Amino acid sequence: MASEIELRLQKLGIELPKPAAPVANYVGAVVAGNLLVVSGQLPIGPNGIAIKGKLGAGVSEAQGKDAARLCAINILAQAKAALGDLSRIKRCIRLGGFVNAVPDYQTIPQVINGASDLMVEALGDAGKHARYAIGVAQLPLDAPVEVEAMFEIA
Amino acid sequence: MASEIELRLQKLGIELPKPAAPVANYVGAVVAGNLLVVSGQLPIGPNGIAIKGKLGAGVSEAQGKDAARLCAINILAQAKAALGDLSRIKRCIRLGGFVNAVPDYQTIPQVINGASDLMVEALGDAGKHARYAIGVAQLPLDAPVEVEAMFEIA
Amino acid sequence: MASEIELRLQKLGIELPKPAAPVANYVGAVVAGNLLVVSGQLPIGPNGIAIKGKLGAGVSEAQGKDAARLCAINILAQAKAALGDLSRIKRCIRLGGFVNAVPDYQTIPQVINGASDLMVEALGDAGKHARYAIGVAQLPLDAPVEVEAMFEIA
Repeated sequence: MASEIELRLQKLGIELPKPAAPVANYVGAVVAGNLLVVSGQLPIGPNGIAIKGKLGAGVSEAQGKDAARLCAINILAQAKAALGDLSRIKRCIRLGGFVNAVPDYQTIPQVINGASDLMVEALGDAGKHARYAIGVAQLPLDAPVEVEAMFEIA
Repeated sequence: MASEIELRLQKLGIELPKPAAPVANYVGAVVAGNLLVVSGQLPIGPNGIAIKGKLGAGVSEAQGKDAARLCAINILAQAKAALGDLSRIKRCIRLGGFVNAVPDYQTIPQVINGASDLMVEALGDAGKHARYAIGVAQLPLDAPVEVEAMFEIA
Repeated sequence: MASEIELRLQKLGIELPKPAAPVANYVGAVVAGNLLVVSGQLPIGPNGIAIKGKLGAGVSEAQGKDAARLCAINILAQAKAALGDLSRIKRCIRLGGFVNAVPDYQTIPQVINGASDLMVEALGDAGKHARYAIGVAQLPLDAPVEVEAMFEIA
């Protein structure tokens, strides 16, 4: 039987991808006690990275928000791979959002809202998280956004 | 009866503000088991953001340190709102300090000391935390500093 | 009797340094329940900071990777000082890697692999962690790399 989270994802038309195997000596997610910690996820879609570049220099706020949403989908894909069943998630504790931005770009929260909104759409009240959002000098693969996450699990 | 932390804050002349409601799908703080995770706080005072701009370009080290102190006060305000009573705090586990800095600005730890010092003034030995401090390209609202936190709670 | 981790470090020819006392109101590491949280570590060796500068402007990928490895060694030194015995480590939960980079520098993961590889060499499967890796505007002491860490402990 599909979990409530899976049903919500279906309604949203979202099919979780198989998370790519990390290319180095780290893993996509770690379970420790009642915590699930997910590695920083990039906006990688079925054809590789969906978009490259900086907010404030080629990437629009709307494109950045879409990229952040894709990062959050990939976080849930890592969570499913680690937990087997998303119904073990009790709460999204925190998202950490990194925006690849030029030094005078200020609408960082609006970009990371793409990830925050997806988490609440998928998890309901359990998706309401603490977060930080910062503008950084550069990200892996020249991605516009990276998002890391911590969940409470049963 | 006021907790020991509240008494310390009184002696410091600090009245915790009512934390502002987040403007997006996230919350100011999340309790998970024995952890309290607080969202990244900006130097927002009674009249909105207290100061804007970058360290190394318009914002001095002293102003940055004051801003970091205000971030830490806002962290305690979020903690009080989430816990009801600050006496539930057993320990500040970690502060993460983000300094909005030009690329050649190096006195990042000194700025974040404004937050670290406040935490120890308010919590005593329980305020001694692990931390990281980094210089970032930009922060929400062009704030000079953002600080996130994790506490152990009873 | 030396722990398995200590034996691995011996085979790698690594002697853990005495961690330097923090110069401000924070500590090198905090134990909270089953978590050990280690402060962001810089590539500081026996003669102070081993290398300064930015990736993409004077510091090569190989030098950055070496610096990240040294950060990871300093993380283990902090862990040993906090725990007394590294055998209390059950798992490295997460590394957070900060690379001091010019805005168009993209091989951030390769630099942080220096820390990830050391953690797996020292801890074996227990060293396989979640991680995030980002490029930042500046780091304390103009260090090229800073790495923070969270462990599950017994």
